[in-house]
Amino acid sequence: MTTVEPLRFEDGALLVLDQRALPAEERWIRCERPEQVADCIRTLAVRGAPAIGVAAAYGIALADDRQAAAELLRSTRPTAVDLGWAVDQTLAAEDPLARARELHRARYEADRRLAELGAARFEEGDRALTHCNAGALATAGFGTAGGVLHAAWERGCLESVWVDETRPLNQGARLTVYELARAGIPHRLVTDSSAGTLMARGLVDRVVVGADRIAANGDVANKIGTYPLAVLAARHEIPFYVAAPVSTLDPATPDGDGIPIEERDPSELGAGIAAVNFAFDVTPAELVSAIFTEAGTLEAPYGEAIARVTAR
Amino acid sequence: MTTVEPLRFEDGALLVLDQRALPAEERWIRCERPEQVADCIRTLAVRGAPAIGVAAAYGIALADDRQAAAELLRSTRPTAVDLGWAVDQTLAAEDPLARARELHRARYEADRRLAELGAARFEEGDRALTHCNAGALATAGFGTAGGVLHAAWERGCLESVWVDETRPLNQGARLTVYELARAGIPHRLVTDSSAGTLMARGLVDRVVVGADRIAANGDVANKIGTYPLAVLAARHEIPFYVAAPVSTLDPATPDGDGIPIEERDPSELGAGIAAVNFAFDVTPAELVSAIFTEAGTLEAPYGEAIARVTAR
Repeated sequence: MTTVEPLRFEDGALLVLDQRALPAEERWIRCERPEQVADCIRTLAVRGAPAIGVAAAYGIALADDRQAAAELLRSTRPTAVDLGWAVDQTLAAEDPLARARELHRARYEADRRLAELGAARFEEGDRALTHCNAGALATAGFGTAGGVLHAAWERGCLESVWVDETRPLNQGARLTVYELARAGIPHRLVTDSSAGTLMARGLVDRVVVGADRIAANGDVANKIGTYPLAVLAARHEIPFYVAAPVSTLDPATPDGDGIPIEERDPSELGAGIAAVNFAFDVTPAELVSAIFTEAGTLEAPYGEAIARVTAR
Repeated sequence: MTTVEPLRFEDGALLVLDQRALPAEERWIRCERPEQVADCIRTLAVRGAPAIGVAAAYGIALADDRQAAAELLRSTRPTAVDLGWAVDQTLAAEDPLARARELHRARYEADRRLAELGAARFEEGDRALTHCNAGALATAGFGTAGGVLHAAWERGCLESVWVDETRPLNQGARLTVYELARAGIPHRLVTDSSAGTLMARGLVDRVVVGADRIAANGDVANKIGTYPLAVLAARHEIPFYVAAPVSTLDPATPDGDGIPIEERDPSELGAGIAAVNFAFDVTPAELVSAIFTEAGTLEAPYGEAIARVTAR
């Protein structure tokens, strides 16, 4: 089992694996100050809701003025809820670095647990489809959706993975393909437009994605393109799973309408073209078959299930 | 009204505007033999079902051995049905060049008529979404889906157009954006994954696409990604229109299962990655609100409507 480590804390600095350069190059960025961590998050050198949470926690640990650092780090990306949660956790700690390290370790354990719960739903020969990257790179752990795929593969229940390219930044083509190749899991890349035809041809048994934020009612914000996959999966009666740590659940936001959706620079779609670039979309809870968290597998009615695990 | 001309017959040769080089460069390829025309079709220098039909017709006109040319041209791309139809028409003609020129002219008239029928469905302020390129470049005429958009714009009934990038070859980003910009029609590029969220936010009033082949029951083969759009449009109760000449209707193929779907080189998604690259998908007739043809607007039940217009 080879997983990738996107973050390391060594010699008083956070080392960030620059995911923009993958898979061509493994380049590390050394951050000694929270401003550098914030830059890494804003520019997507590190990305994936759980990973940016861990990075932000280390960012607080590196700060002289923790309150200012917290404000700066919180402002980097609006959609992921882990970010604010991890900042709060570290800010309140007596020893922020110890707390950041603890969050980092806990991320791995949480992923490992939720991955096993997800993998338990797989049956021999299953072909999964995933979108974007929710593997080890996205979580600073084992991976959420990617962790489920790894665990299902270890159990011998995964035949192969369809990987959505994931425009405009190609996290599927660059990062998920890279992770699956390292792990030796059979996979094939497809355009984001291909899921419909793959499902219609009976080539997809399960869809597994991560989440950037899950509202109190179970509505899921995740990488743009997730919602169409859920609609197609429902039409073809294919289970649509979300894998996400409890820190992704946001009981303070009643439903998807309340989740801020980041709009990124249109130039990500090409220079000089009028474009609109929503980074995330919202999948209504009704389309979600199950949510795997480290506190258990949540099923509809999600309102109750989410209230239960977040009240702990 | 500025439209683009992808094909010209001059001085005994077919000039093909190389669409692979657009929008950066307007480069013309001179074809004096059918083999060169076949190459242009196979390599997508000219693409779009109606346009490759017209190109193939000129290919026959350029041939010494017309039967061999017909076989070669028919083999270039499997999904579009116009191709075989145009080849048959020219092959049977006493003067193939005159017949090819006639088909070329007829394409413009057909597009103009079907575009007006489509535009009649638009209401002031409508925001349309389109996929791939079904404008003048794709038809050697006025455009099918693109023609509808132009005609709606001329009538003052179109506010703006969402243009799907259309991976892997970006015909939306490269060709549709180019055409709309030339025509002065407001437009914004989005990733293929964005349609769901645009619809959920109430930003799309109509979807208009072209077709490569329409089966006897109304199932529509078109660029991969069309089927997901139709599913999403149905969910959001947004009209989903197909604009296509009668030559696209294939009464000999009972339904979408019988339409051969071209699988293109996986390297179109990137070098050295295991990928699957279906070029088209099939949208079931039940998801199609109307089909605009030069012989009238077809509505469900499509079986009867298609039998009627193809029996003429």
